[in-house]
Amino acid sequence: MDNTRVEIITIGDEILYGQTLDTNSHWISGEIDKLGFKVIRKTTIGDTESSILKAVQEAGERAQLVLMTGGLGPTNDDLTKPCLAKYFGMDMSFSPDVLEDVTAFLTSKGREVTEPNRKQAIVPVGAKIIRNKNGTAPGMWFEKDGKIYVSMPGVPHEMVEMMTRQVIPDLRAYFQTGLIYHKVVNTVGIGESWLADIIQEWENGLPLHIRLAYLPSSGMVKLRLTATGDNMETMKKDVAQRVETLKPLIEQYIFGYDNVKLEERVGQLLLNQKKTLGLAESCSGGFVSHLITSVPGSSRYFKGSIVSYDNAIKMGWLGVRADTLNEHGAVSEQTVVEMAENARKMLGTDYAISISGIAGTDGGTQEKPVGTVWLALADGQSTITRKVNLGIDRAINIKLSGINALNLLRQRLMEIL
Amino acid sequence: MDNTRVEIITIGDEILYGQTLDTNSHWISGEIDKLGFKVIRKTTIGDTESSILKAVQEAGERAQLVLMTGGLGPTNDDLTKPCLAKYFGMDMSFSPDVLEDVTAFLTSKGREVTEPNRKQAIVPVGAKIIRNKNGTAPGMWFEKDGKIYVSMPGVPHEMVEMMTRQVIPDLRAYFQTGLIYHKVVNTVGIGESWLADIIQEWENGLPLHIRLAYLPSSGMVKLRLTATGDNMETMKKDVAQRVETLKPLIEQYIFGYDNVKLEERVGQLLLNQKKTLGLAESCSGGFVSHLITSVPGSSRYFKGSIVSYDNAIKMGWLGVRADTLNEHGAVSEQTVVEMAENARKMLGTDYAISISGIAGTDGGTQEKPVGTVWLALADGQSTITRKVNLGIDRAINIKLSGINALNLLRQRLMEIL
Repeated sequence: MDNTRVEIITIGDEILYGQTLDTNSHWISGEIDKLGFKVIRKTTIGDTESSILKAVQEAGERAQLVLMTGGLGPTNDDLTKPCLAKYFGMDMSFSPDVLEDVTAFLTSKGREVTEPNRKQAIVPVGAKIIRNKNGTAPGMWFEKDGKIYVSMPGVPHEMVEMMTRQVIPDLRAYFQTGLIYHKVVNTVGIGESWLADIIQEWENGLPLHIRLAYLPSSGMVKLRLTATGDNMETMKKDVAQRVETLKPLIEQYIFGYDNVKLEERVGQLLLNQKKTLGLAESCSGGFVSHLITSVPGSSRYFKGSIVSYDNAIKMGWLGVRADTLNEHGAVSEQTVVEMAENARKMLGTDYAISISGIAGTDGGTQEKPVGTVWLALADGQSTITRKVNLGIDRAINIKLSGINALNLLRQRLMEIL
Repeated sequence: MDNTRVEIITIGDEILYGQTLDTNSHWISGEIDKLGFKVIRKTTIGDTESSILKAVQEAGERAQLVLMTGGLGPTNDDLTKPCLAKYFGMDMSFSPDVLEDVTAFLTSKGREVTEPNRKQAIVPVGAKIIRNKNGTAPGMWFEKDGKIYVSMPGVPHEMVEMMTRQVIPDLRAYFQTGLIYHKVVNTVGIGESWLADIIQEWENGLPLHIRLAYLPSSGMVKLRLTATGDNMETMKKDVAQRVETLKPLIEQYIFGYDNVKLEERVGQLLLNQKKTLGLAESCSGGFVSHLITSVPGSSRYFKGSIVSYDNAIKMGWLGVRADTLNEHGAVSEQTVVEMAENARKMLGTDYAISISGIAGTDGGTQEKPVGTVWLALADGQSTITRKVNLGIDRAINIKLSGINALNLLRQRLMEIL
């Protein structure tokens, strides 16, 4: 595998001062890894000329490709553009093409072009300009001594669009990448080390030209197989064969392949089976509805939700009995059963899921500590329930409640319950 | 400015390859900033001896304090400890004290001490050991040529506990520091360049010891004032004065200061005014409910939501008239008015916000393109509406719908509508 050495530089005082979490270098790392290149270092520096010049020089000494984000805004604290012009010995000059792009972008938003916006059309002469379809700061591509330096905006969705549409294809062409093929097997409901135990023998049997990577995130683990070689057809076939032998080992945990998300998979299953879904959310506070509706076209199977945060709404709207709430509490199997069954009837859907728990930070008791979550799934015939014990972090509890709810529905739709 | 210069090094292939998001250096940055130290660079490197030795050396040349995380685990790919022993010319030796700590920790979890665990008690002779109360890998404090190097585990909650309990107090004791003071002014509803236009004169009038930075993110811009000096009281007073002269220029856009989030600010306002909130969401699909309930204690003012994704739910549940939907469509001023007014009555809240729009990717028309979003806010007396024209990205449209909805409520509660 030809490992082109890559460094990533993120520029911005706000990252150094801990005000902005650097997700850009994380996303870029993943994309670079998929290209078969090797990220050898990431550096974050502040918005000062000397830091920028030094970091670019050092990275250029170690790597063949330097990817930068940040410091391209229209304000005075954004120094990346003049610094790079200086570093590469280029003049700055006004570009009518860039101004046209900036103007078109702002006009499409119904906004006027201000003087700071106009300044964004002043660019280093000799840099290849990368259009920004989601903003006003253009990206730049520099070449020096056979090495490539790319500067992109720090706003994540501007950088991601620019990188996906133009930078990655251009890098593939420039570095004449060897062939590389990825297949990702997405799992949910099993931890990394349990998964590793189950598939150890299979993993040990992988040939040298197929690598396996475990990519864990909360509640899920992605298994990525990466094949290298010079014949794409053979590589694809080899990977497909390995996936076939992997499947029976972990079938019930696999929810899809490659970029499919759990909420997309659940949507596909509902669509294929011509079923509809409604929700009754308490502790998850609308997050499960948000996950489901983040999928384009979800209106074809998702009807709606009741976010019954207050017990009065659980009773008045959802028809949960006062006795149930008094005897068992809002976080109980009995309550989620009534929530799901009533929501299903009221929303007129085939399925309804309910979620009630203690997300934190307060509200926990000895018997029901923070992180206790009850789920129910009603289908008109029967109602199944699950209790999960999560942690103490509110944000993670909300997220994992959502993943557990979607996985429960997935298992029901796959008939693997 | 004589602030103690700090560098952070995070060690781990999983960060370079995009598998793990580096939240450690983000958290550490914020803490270091609060100490009045100045983070000048962050570096991420992989688990190789040469990378570690080189990065530590370089950081030590630039900074007075080097904070490291990662590479301290019990497995063979964790190299930080032997590398640091080598770098500082120390022997490695078994420490009964550390083994006692490791044993006590594992025993408390009902686990046995394995051979790899035992190895964790082998530490560089001469390093000051930092106890790990949440795990088995001890931290280490090294001193060389008047500079301090601290190595901590990569597991976030182990590092955070260690840093909070021991490292920060020890750093306070060790270093004589210059002073730095930040004040962040959070704005919503105005873009970076428009803001820059409005406050240009004010910005030009800032004294040399107060710097301004623009920190934009979707829908919001943070303005950060950073003062340096040797008298904290004067610095705070100087910054407060500048904020006072800034305020009247952009009053209607300011939603709070420092780390406050928009959803927290809206929650505070509701709580202070003893008002309750309900929602009727269509295109935002539960995201606004999620934002509001992400705040601990939100159950004190948030009652619930109806996510009426399907028109049948809008009619059957929310009582939007069929005529309204037929004549004006689901994405219309008339529909959001009925949604908000009916939701307010049904949920029994003081305020109700409704959102209906075309999030995308499909569903747009010539007259109502993707990104068209109507909002309404009902308070029982009157109902105000807003139309916003967003972009083509579904995820961003959902996010910006949420920010616009919260901002509309904020403006109402602040009586600046």
